[in-house]
Amino acid sequence: MPDSLAQARLDLAIANRIVSVEGIIDAFGHVSMRHPKRPDRYLISRSRSPELVEPADILEYTLDSEPARPLPKGVRGYGELVIHGEIYKARPEINAIAHHHGMAFLPFCNTGEELKPLYHMGAQIGEKVPFWDSRDEFGDTCLLVLKPEEGRSLARALGPHWLVLMRRHGATVAGRNLTELVFRTIYSYRNAELQLMTMAQGWQPSPLTPGEAKLAWDRNLEPRPQARAWEYWCTRLKKAGEYPSARGARGGGARRRK
Amino acid sequence: MPDSLAQARLDLAIANRIVSVEGIIDAFGHVSMRHPKRPDRYLISRSRSPELVEPADILEYTLDSEPARPLPKGVRGYGELVIHGEIYKARPEINAIAHHHGMAFLPFCNTGEELKPLYHMGAQIGEKVPFWDSRDEFGDTCLLVLKPEEGRSLARALGPHWLVLMRRHGATVAGRNLTELVFRTIYSYRNAELQLMTMAQGWQPSPLTPGEAKLAWDRNLEPRPQARAWEYWCTRLKKAGEYPSARGARGGGARRRK
Amino acid sequence: MPDSLAQARLDLAIANRIVSVEGIIDAFGHVSMRHPKRPDRYLISRSRSPELVEPADILEYTLDSEPARPLPKGVRGYGELVIHGEIYKARPEINAIAHHHGMAFLPFCNTGEELKPLYHMGAQIGEKVPFWDSRDEFGDTCLLVLKPEEGRSLARALGPHWLVLMRRHGATVAGRNLTELVFRTIYSYRNAELQLMTMAQGWQPSPLTPGEAKLAWDRNLEPRPQARAWEYWCTRLKKAGEYPSARGARGGGARRRK
Amino acid sequence: MPDSLAQARLDLAIANRIVSVEGIIDAFGHVSMRHPKRPDRYLISRSRSPELVEPADILEYTLDSEPARPLPKGVRGYGELVIHGEIYKARPEINAIAHHHGMAFLPFCNTGEELKPLYHMGAQIGEKVPFWDSRDEFGDTCLLVLKPEEGRSLARALGPHWLVLMRRHGATVAGRNLTELVFRTIYSYRNAELQLMTMAQGWQPSPLTPGEAKLAWDRNLEPRPQARAWEYWCTRLKKAGEYPSARGARGGGARRRK
Repeated sequence: MPDSLAQARLDLAIANRIVSVEGIIDAFGHVSMRHPKRPDRYLISRSRSPELVEPADILEYTLDSEPARPLPKGVRGYGELVIHGEIYKARPEINAIAHHHGMAFLPFCNTGEELKPLYHMGAQIGEKVPFWDSRDEFGDTCLLVLKPEEGRSLARALGPHWLVLMRRHGATVAGRNLTELVFRTIYSYRNAELQLMTMAQGWQPSPLTPGEAKLAWDRNLEPRPQARAWEYWCTRLKKAGEYPSARGARGGGARRRK
Repeated sequence: MPDSLAQARLDLAIANRIVSVEGIIDAFGHVSMRHPKRPDRYLISRSRSPELVEPADILEYTLDSEPARPLPKGVRGYGELVIHGEIYKARPEINAIAHHHGMAFLPFCNTGEELKPLYHMGAQIGEKVPFWDSRDEFGDTCLLVLKPEEGRSLARALGPHWLVLMRRHGATVAGRNLTELVFRTIYSYRNAELQLMTMAQGWQPSPLTPGEAKLAWDRNLEPRPQARAWEYWCTRLKKAGEYPSARGARGGGARRRK
Repeated sequence: MPDSLAQARLDLAIANRIVSVEGIIDAFGHVSMRHPKRPDRYLISRSRSPELVEPADILEYTLDSEPARPLPKGVRGYGELVIHGEIYKARPEINAIAHHHGMAFLPFCNTGEELKPLYHMGAQIGEKVPFWDSRDEFGDTCLLVLKPEEGRSLARALGPHWLVLMRRHGATVAGRNLTELVFRTIYSYRNAELQLMTMAQGWQPSPLTPGEAKLAWDRNLEPRPQARAWEYWCTRLKKAGEYPSARGARGGGARRRK
Repeated sequence: MPDSLAQARLDLAIANRIVSVEGIIDAFGHVSMRHPKRPDRYLISRSRSPELVEPADILEYTLDSEPARPLPKGVRGYGELVIHGEIYKARPEINAIAHHHGMAFLPFCNTGEELKPLYHMGAQIGEKVPFWDSRDEFGDTCLLVLKPEEGRSLARALGPHWLVLMRRHGATVAGRNLTELVFRTIYSYRNAELQLMTMAQGWQPSPLTPGEAKLAWDRNLEPRPQARAWEYWCTRLKKAGEYPSARGARGGGARRRK
């Protein structure tokens, strides 16, 4: 019988590294998934850059973003865990979340300009991309989402959507599974790049119709394109020498060693 | 006697990888060639990202985009085969086709702004670059070219030209042979980059005259520059560790193993 | 007992290489730190590109930018040492300095357009980024900061701030320690990229409030994010084969060999 | 006694590769140097991409761009040799020349917008950058400089300067020696990038004064910065696995083997 939790840890490490190697996450940002057997828990690395995450770095949290068991000595969790916990609470169909400060999103995050789907892959941004400004409810903060009420506010802003822009900060992306999440993170980013490239010309972008967007969204999420893209990104990880080893996936828990 | 089909499979895998490593094709897109001995057939990889294609992945199709023989178990073809089949049917002098969503083309694909040859290498876009909008004939679709009638419509839009923009989707490029195709795919892309860079300044681009464009087109397609560029791209593939092995080129057919 | 000077030389070589590999410094530019035991001295490489610096290249200077001991035969120091010496003199709390000509800063350096913090990481530019024009006091020069009075003028322009733009030349960045310096150098650069990307759209950037900027500045400089980023950059150096060897760190002094 | 010609072949292969690896020359373009002992001859690779040039590829030509000795069987020279021959004839102090189609130059080449020195390194463009349009004297051509009279016309346009833009084609750069040429090729390119980045904002660039430009030009060409940059680029070549082997440098002449 396969150890689904070990596989989940390995997959989550891979997902962390893909979004880093493909240029969207740098030192900061994080990627989580819901626990494969316990929907009231989620998995996420200890506090370290996603490009560096190993299966053994993965920790388990309750949806209140409390560690499911005491953290090993010297291990620290991420500061913004409530982004993940509060969205998993609010949206049972979401099973994977990424938070990032990718450069091509930031001009939209700074100004509130609306993201629009400009090619078929861009349909992955979803019907609408809401815009959350922490100032509205919380006034001056360090802009990070640190308190449960901040996480809940962000989850409310996300509403029924799959991507939310966070003013002067970054973006949070959601998926029904890890592959879909990585797919959405990457292609929503390419769409943002495209919108910047188009508007920098002074050209008026011409978005997909709602009908096109719905059909393209469905098509992109079929098993064949999802599998094809996942194979592509994993192969690129391997060629870059960035594929995580399965070592430590089974033992779990942030490199605890006896 | 050399096995021309084995060589064709190897060359096609190389072409797939060049356009990927040079930054034009990502997880999606595809590159085909007409069968070297049977002009009523074409060769194209099974459904996988062009950067990953091996000679053994190459399948054979009729011009109606039906597999020339039953696909091995578990092997899937690309969804948009009719792009290739319908253009090969309509244009006997075309022997190689690439379909891509390269970022520098997409602002033109989104808005319909006209591509113009802005330097001698850009003459490879041809006299005119037609613009095809799937909405005109087919209304809301997922934007992919999946049905034979969609492929035929695109082939009609291409007309006597060598490059066609596909609204909110990407581009399809054609060549008389694989080297010419790769050359046109890469230098039409550089020309698109140049046009964006120029127009982002608010500067008025100054295209080649038709006479210059014709003379530069001819010059670029002479054997010496074609061979020089092919050697360059192949060497870069090798240095990147991306050159495909000839293994499987002879046996053919998507990694069938006995 | 650890040799703090050997460690300092190794850390300084690492810092030199990080800002190079992350794309901010090319052949020119330099990074220094105050001597860990003698605040009236500073450490900086002999004249060579930061990407190439080894611990054994590190030299020791007085705050008047005189070599603390005679330079080994054939070894030359950087031309612009007074940037470092005069700022260390004027600002006792500054213990690390980088001078660079990173491309994303240069449009601001050329025109005097004001840098603004546009996301939480950009708070690292500080409250204000002063702008120094060598022409004001010194008329036509080669634009380098070569004379003590030029260094003093620049230090006065920096005032109580942490980053100063130098007209038609580049930028000088300061930190309380080497990690903070690298952090500020990189994230002030990303913020400059973001401001260019935003303004190239014709969009009005929306900076952090002073309250947000202060809170984000403090948060970024806490030990956890500082350590996380340093681990990330060091790992990337190692993967790129760019991590310096500790060889020569102890012996000190620009590859002197007995 | 060192074999100065063998050294020249090696240095020329290195220069070819530096300008390629630093992103300025792709499949096309070429770099030459005057023969170190016979000023009426020049050295340049057989027709192949500069990134691939080996010392054994270097051929010798008269200033009329005739091979100094019959080319080995199967070896072809570049098509645009007269660019090099005619400039060496017209300007005895020029000892190295590069011709390229670097992307950041092309918007200037297309439109005739004037390049201006915007930072101290940009002073290497020289006092003025003339603009040559082949149409003025020769009407519609393939835009390449193939005939002696075209080469002479370009040399006249260059006049006493060090860089000339060629309309809808590219640029030709000159230096008193190979290091200076590589330095000018790279930093004139960075300056072009800077001017595009600045003007894309709608900002008015503020060039160096003539006095500043002269002083910065002189300073950049001093032995220390020249040696520092050369060491940097050579080290990067080595790390990229692109440094040419000296093999064949002595034998000379495009891989002739007995």
